[in-house]
Amino acid sequence: MTALLDTARALDAADPLRHHLAAFADAPGVQAYLDGNSLGRPLRDFPEKVAKFVREDWGTRLIRSWDEQWMALPMELGDRIGRVALGAAAGQTVVADSTSVLIYKLLRAAAAADPRRTELVMEIGNFPTDRFLAEGVAAETGMTVRWLEPDPILGVSVADVAAQLSDRTALVSLSHVDYRSGALADMPGITDAVHSAGALMMWDLCHSAGVIPLELDAWGVDMAVGCTYKYLNGGPGSPAFAYLNRAHQGTLNQPIQGWWSAADVFAMGPAYAPAADIRQLLSGTPPVMSMLAMQGMLDLIEEASITAVRQKSRSLTDLAVRAVDAELAPLGVRLLSPRDAELRGGHVTIGHPDFREVTQRLWADGVIPDFRFPDGIRLGLSPLSTSHVETITGVLAVRDALRA
Amino acid sequence: MTALLDTARALDAADPLRHHLAAFADAPGVQAYLDGNSLGRPLRDFPEKVAKFVREDWGTRLIRSWDEQWMALPMELGDRIGRVALGAAAGQTVVADSTSVLIYKLLRAAAAADPRRTELVMEIGNFPTDRFLAEGVAAETGMTVRWLEPDPILGVSVADVAAQLSDRTALVSLSHVDYRSGALADMPGITDAVHSAGALMMWDLCHSAGVIPLELDAWGVDMAVGCTYKYLNGGPGSPAFAYLNRAHQGTLNQPIQGWWSAADVFAMGPAYAPAADIRQLLSGTPPVMSMLAMQGMLDLIEEASITAVRQKSRSLTDLAVRAVDAELAPLGVRLLSPRDAELRGGHVTIGHPDFREVTQRLWADGVIPDFRFPDGIRLGLSPLSTSHVETITGVLAVRDALRA
Repeated sequence: MTALLDTARALDAADPLRHHLAAFADAPGVQAYLDGNSLGRPLRDFPEKVAKFVREDWGTRLIRSWDEQWMALPMELGDRIGRVALGAAAGQTVVADSTSVLIYKLLRAAAAADPRRTELVMEIGNFPTDRFLAEGVAAETGMTVRWLEPDPILGVSVADVAAQLSDRTALVSLSHVDYRSGALADMPGITDAVHSAGALMMWDLCHSAGVIPLELDAWGVDMAVGCTYKYLNGGPGSPAFAYLNRAHQGTLNQPIQGWWSAADVFAMGPAYAPAADIRQLLSGTPPVMSMLAMQGMLDLIEEASITAVRQKSRSLTDLAVRAVDAELAPLGVRLLSPRDAELRGGHVTIGHPDFREVTQRLWADGVIPDFRFPDGIRLGLSPLSTSHVETITGVLAVRDALRA
Repeated sequence: MTALLDTARALDAADPLRHHLAAFADAPGVQAYLDGNSLGRPLRDFPEKVAKFVREDWGTRLIRSWDEQWMALPMELGDRIGRVALGAAAGQTVVADSTSVLIYKLLRAAAAADPRRTELVMEIGNFPTDRFLAEGVAAETGMTVRWLEPDPILGVSVADVAAQLSDRTALVSLSHVDYRSGALADMPGITDAVHSAGALMMWDLCHSAGVIPLELDAWGVDMAVGCTYKYLNGGPGSPAFAYLNRAHQGTLNQPIQGWWSAADVFAMGPAYAPAADIRQLLSGTPPVMSMLAMQGMLDLIEEASITAVRQKSRSLTDLAVRAVDAELAPLGVRLLSPRDAELRGGHVTIGHPDFREVTQRLWADGVIPDFRFPDGIRLGLSPLSTSHVETITGVLAVRDALRA
């Protein structure tokens, strides 16, 4: 225990990103926040920034702010996410709606791309909203879903995917980082395999955007969707982002054709004509106040660089695995994440039958991991806001709660 | 001019709601805000409230706030809107998504209700997003849209609607208050006529929620959608609300089946089962920060009562019409709204070929109406935040700009 804390202190002292820890707002009573992959923390300067937004941008500029700044915000913010976190050139990413609504739009767009291709390939352990939406879209379009059943810890391999592909495959839709195990999929390898079969590839980036360097353009990804309230710290329910490769803009169309997806938003013309650019993915007015917080976090990630963020993420999860081995495995806790950092995203999942009760006790004490039904705890280690000492504090608190 | 200002001063002095004007945040440099029906103003105490939310509910309670308060927010806020503004008993209204996305969901739900009914009845002058969505849903479901062409100033009558109804009608979808003319439709009369034909009725309440008393339950409305950023002052892009009459819950289903619309959100089960209650209209995580501002405004409307709000709205629009007649008609300005307050919602629209330039000049001077393509100005008079003097100030500024 002492040895682990000493190690953590030494790692913190050597952490080139340690000065960013002070950028986040204080959380009185919280000893260890280990759920930054569910809800990232606010920046220290955000309360005053949002208050100023209300007084000035909304309260004084009033409706004029739509012309002055907000109409362009979904695209500007999308471009920034693309540049900082996705490896996406401008004009291919927008911020709008929830992840679920954007996945629906892109699934429908892909389903209509080629009538000869009638199969969607999905992973049986993917996040429920991805699966439920695919089920629904298949039912409404008459398509079939082929369900992959990969290794529950190591996740989807290129071979798993290749075995499901044929000239009937319309789209393969997978998570880059598994929301349970944290397994990291081989995005370029799988995307290539899918393209070899002439199908489209959609990635769910909820658990990788902002913590793992991505190269969507270079890897030829067709479409992607992700959260902004996890590693991008956009706040509770901040809207999602969608990426649609420029090659498909003007040809693929989504079905929720609102005024914001029309070629001319204010023409108010008699019939709908879709925008030929990325705006076509929008539908209605985006929730501006929920699009403010992520801006400061994008600045911070850009300053730190996504490569350095990933390096710290690996250091944190490596230390967590080491602590789990030393302190929790003897109590019957199982590691449910890949052991090799190369194969892992930003969180580590562990299992024990008592974890529901343990989580309740920890939450009351200000140690906050994420409980995952039926008996998992996720240690979500958001690199810019989490120290090595905080990580060890959390693991030791799990140990103490298990013993109690 | 002096007479009009004197009248306005007298009306303000006698206004039983005048003390609420001070509840809204100052807007330095703004002489007259006449666009409360596009973007309502923030309350004076909201900057500090939202800053506190960031520090405490988000920043300190962190992920725990989802369990403690946010999971229930879409339903709680829906119930409150239902009680304060819609005449809807609890359990039938939710706050989620944009107006466009919610209209899509309800159009699709209604389109699937009865396969023998293959026609949607819409109004040719309805707000573009309503029309575009109906076009799209008709195209994807093989239905036909029948387009009503009502009087452009007086709006849709019961007879207009009745003429389009048959046993092929699945749904009639109309705006309660026309976004251009402000014409107020006969909601109970039209809903009855539609029901007589065995069809469903959906109302777009964007320009009436919060300014006109509604009785959705008593009038037997099937479904409704509305904005919260207009008369409910939710802030730019705050999420919309949807009402689905309890009679249809568990039978009508919307197609964007995400984890929030599932019977058990956290079961993460293998297959989708829809919630049997109003939660079925949800899809993904709602934008919590964009759901805060409307709460104070709902309190204010409840305190004032929606009946008193409507009474003041009529007083403001009556005065505006009188001022337009006296000061603008001689300059060639046309009244594009119903003259009778009984037939009018909360805004007054006027027309003149120079209004695009006039609006630009007025905005720069801090007089802020809404320009409507091609040559309209909407005077949107949000009753709790707008005085009679402010209304006259605005009309006189239009006159001066036209003369200049």
